[in-house]
Amino acid sequence: MTTAISPFAPEYFPTLPPLDGFTMATAEAGVKYRGRTDLWVLRCDPGTSVAGVFTQNRCPGAPVDWSRKALSARPDGPRLVVVNSGTANVFSGQAGRDAVKLTAQGAVEVFGGHADAVQIASTGVIGVALDASKVVAQFPDMASRMRSDGWDAAARAIMTTDTYPKGASATAMIHGTRVTINGIAKGSGMIAPDMATMLAYIATDARLDQASLQALLTDLTGPTFNSITVDSDTSTSDTLLLLASGAADHPEVTGSDDPALADFRQALRRVMFDLSQQIVRDGEGISKLIEVVVTGAVSNASADAVARSIANSPLVKTAVAGEDANWGRIIMAVGKAGEPAERDRLSIHIGPHCLATNGQPDPNYREAMGAAYMKQSEIRIGVDLALGEGAATVYGCDLTHAYIDINADYRS
Amino acid sequence: MTTAISPFAPEYFPTLPPLDGFTMATAEAGVKYRGRTDLWVLRCDPGTSVAGVFTQNRCPGAPVDWSRKALSARPDGPRLVVVNSGTANVFSGQAGRDAVKLTAQGAVEVFGGHADAVQIASTGVIGVALDASKVVAQFPDMASRMRSDGWDAAARAIMTTDTYPKGASATAMIHGTRVTINGIAKGSGMIAPDMATMLAYIATDARLDQASLQALLTDLTGPTFNSITVDSDTSTSDTLLLLASGAADHPEVTGSDDPALADFRQALRRVMFDLSQQIVRDGEGISKLIEVVVTGAVSNASADAVARSIANSPLVKTAVAGEDANWGRIIMAVGKAGEPAERDRLSIHIGPHCLATNGQPDPNYREAMGAAYMKQSEIRIGVDLALGEGAATVYGCDLTHAYIDINADYRS
Repeated sequence: MTTAISPFAPEYFPTLPPLDGFTMATAEAGVKYRGRTDLWVLRCDPGTSVAGVFTQNRCPGAPVDWSRKALSARPDGPRLVVVNSGTANVFSGQAGRDAVKLTAQGAVEVFGGHADAVQIASTGVIGVALDASKVVAQFPDMASRMRSDGWDAAARAIMTTDTYPKGASATAMIHGTRVTINGIAKGSGMIAPDMATMLAYIATDARLDQASLQALLTDLTGPTFNSITVDSDTSTSDTLLLLASGAADHPEVTGSDDPALADFRQALRRVMFDLSQQIVRDGEGISKLIEVVVTGAVSNASADAVARSIANSPLVKTAVAGEDANWGRIIMAVGKAGEPAERDRLSIHIGPHCLATNGQPDPNYREAMGAAYMKQSEIRIGVDLALGEGAATVYGCDLTHAYIDINADYRS
Repeated sequence: MTTAISPFAPEYFPTLPPLDGFTMATAEAGVKYRGRTDLWVLRCDPGTSVAGVFTQNRCPGAPVDWSRKALSARPDGPRLVVVNSGTANVFSGQAGRDAVKLTAQGAVEVFGGHADAVQIASTGVIGVALDASKVVAQFPDMASRMRSDGWDAAARAIMTTDTYPKGASATAMIHGTRVTINGIAKGSGMIAPDMATMLAYIATDARLDQASLQALLTDLTGPTFNSITVDSDTSTSDTLLLLASGAADHPEVTGSDDPALADFRQALRRVMFDLSQQIVRDGEGISKLIEVVVTGAVSNASADAVARSIANSPLVKTAVAGEDANWGRIIMAVGKAGEPAERDRLSIHIGPHCLATNGQPDPNYREAMGAAYMKQSEIRIGVDLALGEGAATVYGCDLTHAYIDINADYRS
């Protein structure tokens, strides 16, 4: 099966410069795919701090169990990240757990470090244990090819149903020293807030302690990776890592709230937002991007629930696919969320047009306005509940024939 | 746009015999559709008890507001039910509220009774006020054609995207007297538990007080109408009414728990289950019916949440459409529900086959077993969480190209 490249694919992969403290290589391990790379090893110099956010799914894969625990390991050698595509190694029982351990052990034998500190992720089909021997067999050759560039190749190696590789980079100043942030990600289905079928790896040469790094990452995940949804389904493998080598020569910062981190925080947020946008813009079968902005809710959490209800509604998503400014379905999705909402107070915008307000169609609205707007490729739905100050934005995509094609035929 | 008739359509509409205490007529009011009926009036003899369950959507339509209130009216004349298709009269502001009132007033002028006791329902597009004049203009002619049969015609008049009319009938004995239960329903999209885009009207000649009737209806809605889901979307118009004329000559019953009602309760449940099954089997674009049975949950509510998570998952639904026994997506949907679940204790069945247990694929399972089973038109997914005694069953359908066709083009 071939899948058309998303209409939102960027024209080119951005430049991700080499980063002091990190080397990497990719390989064709033949886990499932043929004729493409499916394995990536990232080696982080000793002293690298790591922060992580993992899936909220109650049935996570063996790699997630392993990597969650590895987060707290403090190796005195290098820290390794090993990612394969092709199988997710989820619900694969003892064989799956063994595969993770063998991969970690095999990696440290070749690249150094401690097995219990190796970050491992697998993405692909559920229910098939990873054949660790295929992965481990690649390590010696990979070790001979480790370089500080190759982020593009890494982004390609971890793809599954993605139609383009995803990367982003930014720089920031900390105490007068320029630091760099590079990130790659994959994911295009089984994507919902609270982490998606999504792997994302962000690396920086900044010097931050583990606690500050984790606080920054957790704080910025909400408005970025946790604000996207493709199909409301939540993967068993989601992993987001932030690694800081400390190679940049700036004075230590004292906690994630240190004013010296203000610029870094902004840059990190840009990278995280950019990557998350690239994921939703590669949503399986996407023809239109949907941005749902809910304001006037009783709380931010309530706004978020309403926005997700709209962004995940099959009827809203198919209306957008059909270029139909069907605000009736938006009303339905608002009411379905179960959050405080008063029919006769809320108003609905599509792009610049107010479609409905005060419990009825806006008298100035004409169907031709909505029809013209809906032909755009990026659709903004605004809902003001007029109850309070709560606000949230969620990014989703439409539901098309291509989604069915991809997902009714994924394993064959 | 023409839509193929559901492969699950029954061969014929069942026989719904005339019921003492009820007369009806249908008409072509031309609300939206042309060349078909779109209006139904049911007249219930004085003394008829009525019970109702309405949508949980926080943005209900004007007819729902009106009918909820009308439930408690105690008219000394006849009670009327007026249903139109074509517009839902939802989010239609003052014009919508006026339309409901005008319809009720117009109806009682012709058919008798009190306006504030008229049960009104509208189904169709949201955001368009009902033109009550079109409806009221039909009443005089309809009055001249009122008959005690015509349930088939009524079921046809209330259809929207339904591909077949839905009816069911049963008889029961109360204190040695035979009573009859007739029901009709519509709905095939915007269907989710907690009431669907669904209208259902059930009438009986049994003699029951309002409180007993309501208790019976509420009690039986859970395992019937609230156990189906087509697309997880919840309509703003859902209405389920149960009307008892009391024309049957049996002694009074004392409350819904009266042992004399045991047979009636069973018969009513059969009718409600039959109608709800007909709705999900007419799910928009359905090619396969999905029955999800969750056992071993910590509570029935927890089992229900897990079952709904599976039945509503786009990835599970597309896998079924693709005849793929993709139990990995079932695991994902179990974990996504957020309910207590332990990956290494749960087991998954598809039909008679155990696919996965103890945190890994079942060693006796072969892909050929699943592949053969998935060719059936009715797919049973069983999940045992092995944690407690909670159990629930939810009925859904697959997600196909036809769903996209129907919903990306509904208003045109």
